[in-house]
Amino acid sequence: MADRRVAVCDLGSNSFRLVVFTAADGWWGRTDEIYEPVRIGEGLAATGRLGDEGIARALATVEVFAHFCEATGVEEVDAVATSAIRDAENADEFLRRSALPVRVLSQRDEAYHGYLAAVNSSTLADGVVLDIGGGSMQLVRVVGRHAQALESWRLGAVRMTERFELAGDGPAPAKRLKALRDHVARKLERAPWLGRSGDRLVALGGTVRNLATAVQLEHDMPSMGVQGFVLERAALDDLVERLAAMAPADRGKVPGIKPARGDLILAGAVVVQGVLEAGGFGALEVTEAGLREGVFFARHLQGEPPLVDDVRRSSVLNLAGQHHVDPAHTEHVARLALGLFDDLAAAGLHPGDPRERELLWAACVLHDIGMAVDYDDHHKHSRYLVLNSGLPGFSQREVALIGQAVRFHRKGMPGLGPFSALAHKGDAAVLDRCAVLLRLAEDLERSRDQVVRAVGVAARNGKVRLALEAAGDVRVAQWAASRERDLFRRAFDRELELTA
Amino acid sequence: MADRRVAVCDLGSNSFRLVVFTAADGWWGRTDEIYEPVRIGEGLAATGRLGDEGIARALATVEVFAHFCEATGVEEVDAVATSAIRDAENADEFLRRSALPVRVLSQRDEAYHGYLAAVNSSTLADGVVLDIGGGSMQLVRVVGRHAQALESWRLGAVRMTERFELAGDGPAPAKRLKALRDHVARKLERAPWLGRSGDRLVALGGTVRNLATAVQLEHDMPSMGVQGFVLERAALDDLVERLAAMAPADRGKVPGIKPARGDLILAGAVVVQGVLEAGGFGALEVTEAGLREGVFFARHLQGEPPLVDDVRRSSVLNLAGQHHVDPAHTEHVARLALGLFDDLAAAGLHPGDPRERELLWAACVLHDIGMAVDYDDHHKHSRYLVLNSGLPGFSQREVALIGQAVRFHRKGMPGLGPFSALAHKGDAAVLDRCAVLLRLAEDLERSRDQVVRAVGVAARNGKVRLALEAAGDVRVAQWAASRERDLFRRAFDRELELTA
Repeated sequence: MADRRVAVCDLGSNSFRLVVFTAADGWWGRTDEIYEPVRIGEGLAATGRLGDEGIARALATVEVFAHFCEATGVEEVDAVATSAIRDAENADEFLRRSALPVRVLSQRDEAYHGYLAAVNSSTLADGVVLDIGGGSMQLVRVVGRHAQALESWRLGAVRMTERFELAGDGPAPAKRLKALRDHVARKLERAPWLGRSGDRLVALGGTVRNLATAVQLEHDMPSMGVQGFVLERAALDDLVERLAAMAPADRGKVPGIKPARGDLILAGAVVVQGVLEAGGFGALEVTEAGLREGVFFARHLQGEPPLVDDVRRSSVLNLAGQHHVDPAHTEHVARLALGLFDDLAAAGLHPGDPRERELLWAACVLHDIGMAVDYDDHHKHSRYLVLNSGLPGFSQREVALIGQAVRFHRKGMPGLGPFSALAHKGDAAVLDRCAVLLRLAEDLERSRDQVVRAVGVAARNGKVRLALEAAGDVRVAQWAASRERDLFRRAFDRELELTA
Repeated sequence: MADRRVAVCDLGSNSFRLVVFTAADGWWGRTDEIYEPVRIGEGLAATGRLGDEGIARALATVEVFAHFCEATGVEEVDAVATSAIRDAENADEFLRRSALPVRVLSQRDEAYHGYLAAVNSSTLADGVVLDIGGGSMQLVRVVGRHAQALESWRLGAVRMTERFELAGDGPAPAKRLKALRDHVARKLERAPWLGRSGDRLVALGGTVRNLATAVQLEHDMPSMGVQGFVLERAALDDLVERLAAMAPADRGKVPGIKPARGDLILAGAVVVQGVLEAGGFGALEVTEAGLREGVFFARHLQGEPPLVDDVRRSSVLNLAGQHHVDPAHTEHVARLALGLFDDLAAAGLHPGDPRERELLWAACVLHDIGMAVDYDDHHKHSRYLVLNSGLPGFSQREVALIGQAVRFHRKGMPGLGPFSALAHKGDAAVLDRCAVLLRLAEDLERSRDQVVRAVGVAARNGKVRLALEAAGDVRVAQWAASRERDLFRRAFDRELELTA
């Protein structure tokens, strides 16, 4: 399959962004990006019109985007505009002079693309998607992975900042904050379904990503991006209180908040709080995908609506595909490890939890991706890549467990390390089992030639005997696997024996 | 060029290690490794013979190595043995039953391969190479990159530990330590040239790597491996004092010291101290290359002796080759950046230091390697790869500067961050200049089509005007470069202007 490249240009109220998506054999991902804080929506709340300066900045930026696509040979270009351009009386002054043809998304379309981004980058089946931009805020009710209500409000961060004058000098006046809160609450009355849509809220957009990063940094959480991060309501409330007490310029200095967003973050955060309040949500789940991914998914995926079958599985395979692992090897490692997992569960040596089995599978598929960095310490590089990718669809706890399992597929004794804070009770044992089964499978496949076809498992008298069924000489496999005795004992409380 | 794979099996006194080296078009590196702590030298100091158990472990391990090479299709195999096997009366009991043909290196050959590793992974031209293993310790006098004296002593870490009984319970008795020190000093009298060989000592081997890591961790230094690390004598002396006061098992728990080396590290460290003392060296420079790389270099490089022409340049190109950067793009970025560097120096706006110019060149060549990890945040991934590779031939300060320059080739304002501790006076300004020139060159080449052929530089009236000579439309380039005005002002104290 030839690589397909699509440039999605997102002409938002706060910023314009061009993202090049590449889809190749076995993976897709972002491969280029241009960002410009155009703020075309500046002044719109007061006048209902785009200002001359904003239009000039917008035209120049779109011209750069057009030239960029031409120079880099990207032929498939999709420029979409959202709230500011949709709502301005004089949008035509921009649209008819734009260097690229622009699709102005309706409120419903904007909400729909945010919904596509959310359901294809999380496990959300029933709940709500929240997408807040500069001009508008969208909420989508999701039932059985399908959109049941697609709504949009003019509650974007730029617009609310201007309307409630929250970017003036000094701390935010309590009266204005209260006025904004009341405004949001009143507007949300239009969506009575909000409180009856389950307890999951998946949120997108730069405001949400910045708030999540700020909370992570404040609480010294492990650095693994915000994909899958659960932002608790109490933590958000604390942060809003801190931000409100600062001058706007200082808000942009809070670690995690981008300086260019310092004046907008407070209004955006208050709108998000309003959604949590109105829907009775205790937390929101962050995804890094956004409108741009939604536009890409709509073009790239099959089906109506275009949904990834299994988000977790496809995240793992996408990451493996991006780093060109040797599938003959990793698939065989996965087959051997899952066989051991099942047989040891059947023998009563562990609970056989299907979620744990999926983590083990993911670790098997991903254990060697770090070789794309360097062979030396590739187990550590594999962890780095897993943590950086965020594996959409997995929680941060699960990503951490997969990361530690690939880290400990060679060298050292497994431990949760910096991720203990994310762990559930029993996770140290989960990690031990995943790591030792991955190690054993890797050992049995150490010569990367699939010589060990299968393994018979017999548990008796406090011992587990693995009988290797092989198509040839198994000395390398036997030697390698015999080194796992200590970890096997720790994980399963049994002595490990190996026979050919 | 077809990939060439060579398996070097290093049958050392303490451990056996198989390393697969791959040499492909534009790069070479380690691509597989098997390690087994065989300790064939155990008991040798007392009896002069290899023990039966050691021989059995050695035979089994070599058999695994042989099967591994067969299963993975590596046909070029070079197994070399060092001190323990060279010196034992009964080495033949192992050699005639070994599954691989083994070359027993003479003392001189062992020293020679350590020398090759050192001069091809550092800038050492005149000085001394120290290589300490389990059985022996080699010193080589280097003059004009050539070996002038190649000597070996039976002062390896396993041997000295046994002979001076330094692995018994509890702290090391002062008397035994003193006896070891006297022994080393007496032996080194054989090398009167040691004190007249300049002030550079490059050191290799697991003992040295462990000592360096322990000192780095103790002093909370940035985590970037030990390649190029300068281990000061005072820090080594402190560490030895701490180790001597511990029981051997506790020595293996000191962060940085491998548990399996806990009982050997003290004797090894004391031998290293003895070399510093005898040669009057104030510090040693660590390289991660060792005997195995020396054997590979002897097979792979041209010339007599086989020397890499320019170690620094070839480290940079090797790392870039490993991650398949687009050379048309990076070479053009380097050309533009170095042109700006030279013209701005000619205009008197900075000192034009050739060392700084080389760092800028390296940053240009390496700025995009992080795309091998992921496009998103690839500037940070590029830094991660630079720090992990260690760039043999560069000091850790220089590696940190290159790493920060590639980190700041997009997004954020440059700073030394965690590397301030390594920095010299003026390095913040060096980084600003490298980062802004790399950014400008990258901006001018933003569309990756070499449309901007060259840049004219005119400095007057507190301004620097860049005139772009282009083969086509330069709107993308101009737009991109215009964003660097703030950083340019900070770096050169001039306003930046751009004209087509």
